[in-house]
Amino acid sequence: MYFGKVTGTVVASRKDEKLEGLKLLFVQQVDASGKITSTYVVAADAVGAGMGEMVMFATGSSARQTTATEGKPVDAVVMAIVDTWEIGGKVVYDKYDQEAVSV
Amino acid sequence: MYFGKVTGTVVASRKDEKLEGLKLLFVQQVDASGKITSTYVVAADAVGAGMGEMVMFATGSSARQTTATEGKPVDAVVMAIVDTWEIGGKVVYDKYDQEAVSV
Amino acid sequence: MYFGKVTGTVVASRKDEKLEGLKLLFVQQVDASGKITSTYVVAADAVGAGMGEMVMFATGSSARQTTATEGKPVDAVVMAIVDTWEIGGKVVYDKYDQEAVSV
Amino acid sequence: MYFGKVTGTVVASRKDEKLEGLKLLFVQQVDASGKITSTYVVAADAVGAGMGEMVMFATGSSARQTTATEGKPVDAVVMAIVDTWEIGGKVVYDKYDQEAVSV
Amino acid sequence: MYFGKVTGTVVASRKDEKLEGLKLLFVQQVDASGKITSTYVVAADAVGAGMGEMVMFATGSSARQTTATEGKPVDAVVMAIVDTWEIGGKVVYDKYDQEAVSV
Repeated sequence: MYFGKVTGTVVASRKDEKLEGLKLLFVQQVDASGKITSTYVVAADAVGAGMGEMVMFATGSSARQTTATEGKPVDAVVMAIVDTWEIGGKVVYDKYDQEAVSV
Repeated sequence: MYFGKVTGTVVASRKDEKLEGLKLLFVQQVDASGKITSTYVVAADAVGAGMGEMVMFATGSSARQTTATEGKPVDAVVMAIVDTWEIGGKVVYDKYDQEAVSV
Repeated sequence: MYFGKVTGTVVASRKDEKLEGLKLLFVQQVDASGKITSTYVVAADAVGAGMGEMVMFATGSSARQTTATEGKPVDAVVMAIVDTWEIGGKVVYDKYDQEAVSV
Repeated sequence: MYFGKVTGTVVASRKDEKLEGLKLLFVQQVDASGKITSTYVVAADAVGAGMGEMVMFATGSSARQTTATEGKPVDAVVMAIVDTWEIGGKVVYDKYDQEAVSV
Repeated sequence: MYFGKVTGTVVASRKDEKLEGLKLLFVQQVDASGKITSTYVVAADAVGAGMGEMVMFATGSSARQTTATEGKPVDAVVMAIVDTWEIGGKVVYDKYDQEAVSV
């Protein structure tokens, strides 16, 4: 899984029927230092993630292992919302104290 | 999934029998700012996408989860046509107002 | 799928038993402008492709969806031979008129 | 599989229900010379790996083949802890003699 | 599949139980001209490959299609030992005449 930040939304009315009702999020990948990159993925939402949230996403067949995405033609899913992320004991991201951290 | 623009077509008369009747699209990947890149994929069409349309495509085993592609040797599928795509509340792409946007 | 050109052959007498009888092709990937690159893949042949032919190959679990490759430890398969490939109405490759095109 | 070093931890209270009880590790990939890189992956822990340990991780559907991860939306798993790693007879990493080696 | 050269070994005593008895090889990828690169993969051995041998490896779910790796958390397998590899009729590698070739 990788860290990502939900920075956008996508609307697609004409799509494979299995995608009906699935919310698609525009997620920009976050690098090892906590910075948002220009690498993105459009991911199905399995956890009710909101704009600006730091999330984790899984790709490939693993993206179809949530109840929301089972058997559907999606290759990426937001499967968790990050509370805290630490490297070497140092906080890189804290959902409840974003001023103290590097993102 | 990634955004892509359908920019070409492919004809292949000699192919695995499971591919009969499947339409193959030449799709160029679109980056996070909405620009078309030179990275491409040949994808099966599951939604009737046309030339010049902004689409989403899924890859890997997920590409075989549409009715059109089930059990077939394809590793990419166009599974949605994009109406609008916004980042941070700003419209990057709008199918019905393309002059106003950055693509 | 990606476009590739069959430029070489591989012989391997000691191999997993499921690979017996499977022809392996050395395929160099072709970029969006039709040029052969140094990126390669060794792919199983499901369509009787010959040296110098422009083909399409699929990777991952999709490579095991042909009759020739089902259940075998191969992660790439040549599943079609390209007749024509057009971008924006312009011919990039034409199997029967290669002098007129850019490859 | 690739070598990685466990350098961080992740806490995510809001997640897909199948992820309950699964420990997630922040793992930085190690290159062929034994150096830690900035390429990372968040991986499920199947072997009780601790901070600072040199591990191996598997990705894709293979990440779901451990008892800990079966059927879960994870695309990376730490499936082994490295004792020794040698290239050309030279020790690159030795868990019990880290001063003698290059990591 | 890609070509690789077996250049090292890995020992891991603490690992997922399904990995017991599986030999893990350190394999460095070989590029289209036959040169060894710094890109590596740790792959399960399904063919009894030895140090210094030129092999082919498969990745992803295809790595689990050999008898040795079925159902196991490995995402790469050495599934063949290369005898000869030719490009455009020119020998790039010949197991029995390595002085004559470019590797």
